Amino acid sequence: MSRVYVQNFSISLDGFGTGEGTSRDTPFGHAGERLHEWMFETRWWRKASGQSDGSGGIDDAFVRQHDAGIGIEIMGAGKFGYPGWHEDPDWKGWWGANPPFHTPVFVLTHHLRSPIEMEGGTTYHFIDASPARALEMAREAANGQGIRIGGGAIVVRDFLAAGLVDHAHIVVTPILLGRGVRLWDGLESLEQRYEIEAVSSPSGVTHLTFSRRGA
Amino acid sequence: MSRVYVQNFSISLDGFGTGEGTSRDTPFGHAGERLHEWMFETRWWRKASGQSDGSGGIDDAFVRQHDAGIGIEIMGAGKFGYPGWHEDPDWKGWWGANPPFHTPVFVLTHHLRSPIEMEGGTTYHFIDASPARALEMAREAANGQGIRIGGGAIVVRDFLAAGLVDHAHIVVTPILLGRGVRLWDGLESLEQRYEIEAVSSPSGVTHLTFSRRGA
Repeated sequence: MSRVYVQNFSISLDGFGTGEGTSRDTPFGHAGERLHEWMFETRWWRKASGQSDGSGGIDDAFVRQHDAGIGIEIMGAGKFGYPGWHEDPDWKGWWGANPPFHTPVFVLTHHLRSPIEMEGGTTYHFIDASPARALEMAREAANGQGIRIGGGAIVVRDFLAAGLVDHAHIVVTPILLGRGVRLWDGLESLEQRYEIEAVSSPSGVTHLTFSRRGA
Repeated sequence: MSRVYVQNFSISLDGFGTGEGTSRDTPFGHAGERLHEWMFETRWWRKASGQSDGSGGIDDAFVRQHDAGIGIEIMGAGKFGYPGWHEDPDWKGWWGANPPFHTPVFVLTHHLRSPIEMEGGTTYHFIDASPARALEMAREAANGQGIRIGGGAIVVRDFLAAGLVDHAHIVVTPILLGRGVRLWDGLESLEQRYEIEAVSSPSGVTHLTFSRRGA
């Protein structure tokens, strides 16, 4: 049975996973890149960018779990594209010709189109389904490998609220965005279903891990 | 010049400093005591309760900074009493005859009454003033010692928003309350004015410290 993961999902101290004012030029709105700066300093990221330096500590240990054993990603329409992408027949996501997923990706959207096959093993499939139904379809496609819930904040929240996530790794960054899309809304008492660990990094972020009790 | 402190102020992962439904029997609403359980395990707290055991680690190191060098506390009406306390002429706060403050306490309220002198050095003064004006009055009364902003969440938020806090210690507990009074609202970009450290404790909480740049 495929396990379901949230990985490296970054939020601000005040709980926003995306800022306000997302657009083609600003995928995270007024947050810019600030939610993810901790990641850019890791050896894992630096290597993917063709560099040989970077930190090898706790941030790197977490971030490099991104790929291993994942058979498919489910993402929201707002992660796949800017508001209005569905009116652009040439839009193929933010990640260029060879996206970093290297697996099938289910894009949850009301605007269906044909699958898009990219280089490196990534194929975007567009589906209009509830979290539970999307997960059923993903389990069939994952061949027993893990399923990543890729975000954005609303999609992660919906899957958590529906009790569909086995392991979640949330990264709290020391900034206050003040506005945007909140991760935690409507998740009262979530701690009763998970073992939670918190560990702070010298980089200033705190890694929260949620492991489902009995999973 | 007196420094201004927020100490041991506990919030949930989703940022609530108080739950919903506060009353005389439930000072923190549906949160109950859960925001403060980390504190009850410390040697400092246990000793104050007449016990000799308790943890002597990071939680204890933080919590016992509560008293040293503090000359006065400013608190909100919602910390002093339950909704409607001002209609009860005999209400003297939640803390019994010998409250844990041992200094003057300014209670911010529109419902003024005469000062109440308690045992152990605590005297409650009731003042109707803005954060900035209350702080001016507190500086005069503090004799150069520190000023504690005692809460609740709205009062801490108001003093932070007005740029009046030198050091803040916020404790993030691994629970999701879902509803109540949010600490972080309206504090966008607060990190630009503070050095922020995060350190997690084996107890599961994360201690955030904000130190004002240049202070």
